[in-house]
Amino acid sequence: MRIATVGLDADDTLWHNETIFRLTQERFRGLMADVATPDVLDERLAAVERRNLALYGYGVKGFTLSLIETAMELTGGEPPGRIIADILAAGREMLAHPVEPLPGVQPALAELAASHRLVLITKGDLLHQEQKLAASGLGDLFAAVEIVSEKDERTYRTIFQRHGSGAEAAAMCGNSIRSDVLPALAAGAWAAHIPYHVTWAHEMAEPPVDHPRFAELASIAELPAWVRSLG
Amino acid sequence: MRIATVGLDADDTLWHNETIFRLTQERFRGLMADVATPDVLDERLAAVERRNLALYGYGVKGFTLSLIETAMELTGGEPPGRIIADILAAGREMLAHPVEPLPGVQPALAELAASHRLVLITKGDLLHQEQKLAASGLGDLFAAVEIVSEKDERTYRTIFQRHGSGAEAAAMCGNSIRSDVLPALAAGAWAAHIPYHVTWAHEMAEPPVDHPRFAELASIAELPAWVRSLG
Repeated sequence: MRIATVGLDADDTLWHNETIFRLTQERFRGLMADVATPDVLDERLAAVERRNLALYGYGVKGFTLSLIETAMELTGGEPPGRIIADILAAGREMLAHPVEPLPGVQPALAELAASHRLVLITKGDLLHQEQKLAASGLGDLFAAVEIVSEKDERTYRTIFQRHGSGAEAAAMCGNSIRSDVLPALAAGAWAAHIPYHVTWAHEMAEPPVDHPRFAELASIAELPAWVRSLG
Repeated sequence: MRIATVGLDADDTLWHNETIFRLTQERFRGLMADVATPDVLDERLAAVERRNLALYGYGVKGFTLSLIETAMELTGGEPPGRIIADILAAGREMLAHPVEPLPGVQPALAELAASHRLVLITKGDLLHQEQKLAASGLGDLFAAVEIVSEKDERTYRTIFQRHGSGAEAAAMCGNSIRSDVLPALAAGAWAAHIPYHVTWAHEMAEPPVDHPRFAELASIAELPAWVRSLG
């Protein structure tokens, strides 16, 4: 069998994530309605997030701190206490949010796990990603979990070496062309893109439609057949 | 050679960490001097941290959010903006803090790295731990870095299997009896305790002085000789 290992992205591939950030951002718009229009608020929040990314990384706690910082900036440094309280509560709710696998995920992974080594490969907060995997009920289907700070060519090369016979015998699957597809292809692996209905602006990139090891799948339900088709 | 792999804790073993949290806590006492006595403040902060631990985990961002929450509680939900601003700044400074290896760390690790596989094994925030390792200049001495959410027997068993020939051929070294020593011994590895001058209350435990695979070292400078003495 050509493919021994299948890597899977987590957020927005196995379960909703970006949607939850967007919902919190909507809640933040409501909270700040007296202070700023939604456009101004979104723009300012995006600027704060960009500025903090290298220091805070990806994840709910950094996002919560960026919400507080945005509220500070837009209220001349004196946000009403109820706004801070609500942001803290929103952050806690995001962390404790129930995790439900997206439609088709459970059967597709169960089928693949019978014949392949599945590895979860995800960015984000270590503790929170482990909590989400446990809450999703999918944990037992994975042979390994790799939570990484960057998804680049070297990351995929190392992980597919560690959990299998190298990138040439591995396929990566995720919703981000930039993080899941391009660096996995560069490492020598196969890669399938499964679009999610919302994409974070930082993750936008053109699909490599002409690449011989790339596939665009409409849903994760198509993943097992595609992996089998690779021989 | 009996020992193939040496695991090393990071915070307060290779570089200061707890000290930086304590300094931030002192700064917080100053900031809140009009609001609460140091005793009340420390007690309340400890209670908030304990409550948030399962959700926030270990690390600077969670600590920063707990400081904000404590300030909220002690000011009847209306903290002056400058307090929030100063807490956010303190959090950013902790994340960007220069990382200087503790005395003796660099030569001890350089000596060990010539003959053994060194693995950094640490709890905490993934991105921040990677940033600290890079900033410390010690990165090249490690064969692998494992950032984990819990340090238990199973963690050590898995890591020493992955990076070597199992726990029986591995030694763990760190400042926490509870996280570095006891679970590593339980996994079947050797373990050395190197005390740090401050220990977080959550990490307190009695040293297993009678255990045949345990050593208490006065400084990391003694580590290479101890590892060699194991045969």
